[in-house]
Amino acid sequence: MTITVFGYSASTYSLVIFHILKELGLSYEVVQPSSFEEIKSPDYLATKHPFGRIPSLSDDGFHIYESRAIARYLINKYQGTKTSTVLIPSDVQKAALVDQFISVETSYYTQHLGKLIYQLIFKKRHGGEPDLKAVNEAREELVKTLDVYEKLLEGKDYLTGEFTLADLLHIPATFYAINVAGEGDLWSKRPNVSRWWKNISERECWKTLSVNIN
Amino acid sequence: MTITVFGYSASTYSLVIFHILKELGLSYEVVQPSSFEEIKSPDYLATKHPFGRIPSLSDDGFHIYESRAIARYLINKYQGTKTSTVLIPSDVQKAALVDQFISVETSYYTQHLGKLIYQLIFKKRHGGEPDLKAVNEAREELVKTLDVYEKLLEGKDYLTGEFTLADLLHIPATFYAINVAGEGDLWSKRPNVSRWWKNISERECWKTLSVNIN
Repeated sequence: MTITVFGYSASTYSLVIFHILKELGLSYEVVQPSSFEEIKSPDYLATKHPFGRIPSLSDDGFHIYESRAIARYLINKYQGTKTSTVLIPSDVQKAALVDQFISVETSYYTQHLGKLIYQLIFKKRHGGEPDLKAVNEAREELVKTLDVYEKLLEGKDYLTGEFTLADLLHIPATFYAINVAGEGDLWSKRPNVSRWWKNISERECWKTLSVNIN
Repeated sequence: MTITVFGYSASTYSLVIFHILKELGLSYEVVQPSSFEEIKSPDYLATKHPFGRIPSLSDDGFHIYESRAIARYLINKYQGTKTSTVLIPSDVQKAALVDQFISVETSYYTQHLGKLIYQLIFKKRHGGEPDLKAVNEAREELVKTLDVYEKLLEGKDYLTGEFTLADLLHIPATFYAINVAGEGDLWSKRPNVSRWWKNISERECWKTLSVNIN
């Protein structure tokens, strides 16, 4: 069994996959594209990801792209084989709530947070200046979302009650927002959100990954 | 067993759920919110959908929101019990490809198409004028996506080869774009995309639903 991840070690979506691989106890190798141009090349589009994104994954010749799909594939195939961590429960109703919060994460959280950290971190790193209007719009939407999360997390350690894939998908982008973009107040001033962030960011598998991020 | 869908019969996301219920051979009742204000009311937010959206679903007291999560729940629980339609295959690799194309649908297709039909149909219906800049931006992004779909669908009847949930999720919004917004050229001038649209829009379960849409 050889699992290869095509991605960047600093990319939030790639970090999601590395984190899942660690939670499941799987070994893997990473192939980093040599340049931004490579992921837009005809060969990359034809063999790795037709929309020119990262990450994609190869598992003994089976190829798949899009991080949330890669996540589900790894869990469906390997969960329980090397570690006892459960990221998607087998119970139909419990699994449905994981799916519900993955959809919430995708549509109301990461959509806005992704725009915020793109402007405040990645655009700057490539020599650009943040578009302050875009920053403020993304922050305003994220504030609305976190206000709802504050209610959803009342009396709960995790979104569904137990740590699952739904929580895990939030970690890398939130880590960047708090520790690199300096937006930590958005999380720390909401007691339930703050407790939740502490719970999910202290996963041992994540801590071994995040020490190298700056 | 009583399945109740909270939604509007004209909403694309509600139509996705009605279509899945029909494919699975399940009976259901629909409760339409009395007004747009109702779905933003404290009671609705507390009991139906904390982000104030539709649809949500109740199945004998189990409550779930977000259409793609509802879809997975219904399939996990009921697929194969009333009809032989397979929307998510049990094979791990086949299921992974369904997940991959659901992620493609969410991020590259419906995100842009949703903006286009909001501007061209729903905004107009509520007395507004379409924002032509937003229309053009959404159409440009959709064109890029459909150019990739044209390649992905080469020699295939459906995205994964067989009709699945990934195809189904495209249907209602595309129906509106072609039949109400008059944007059919985007699909018809691409031979593979056009053939795919014909295949997925001719599902009997969809045809019984779509006759009432205008």
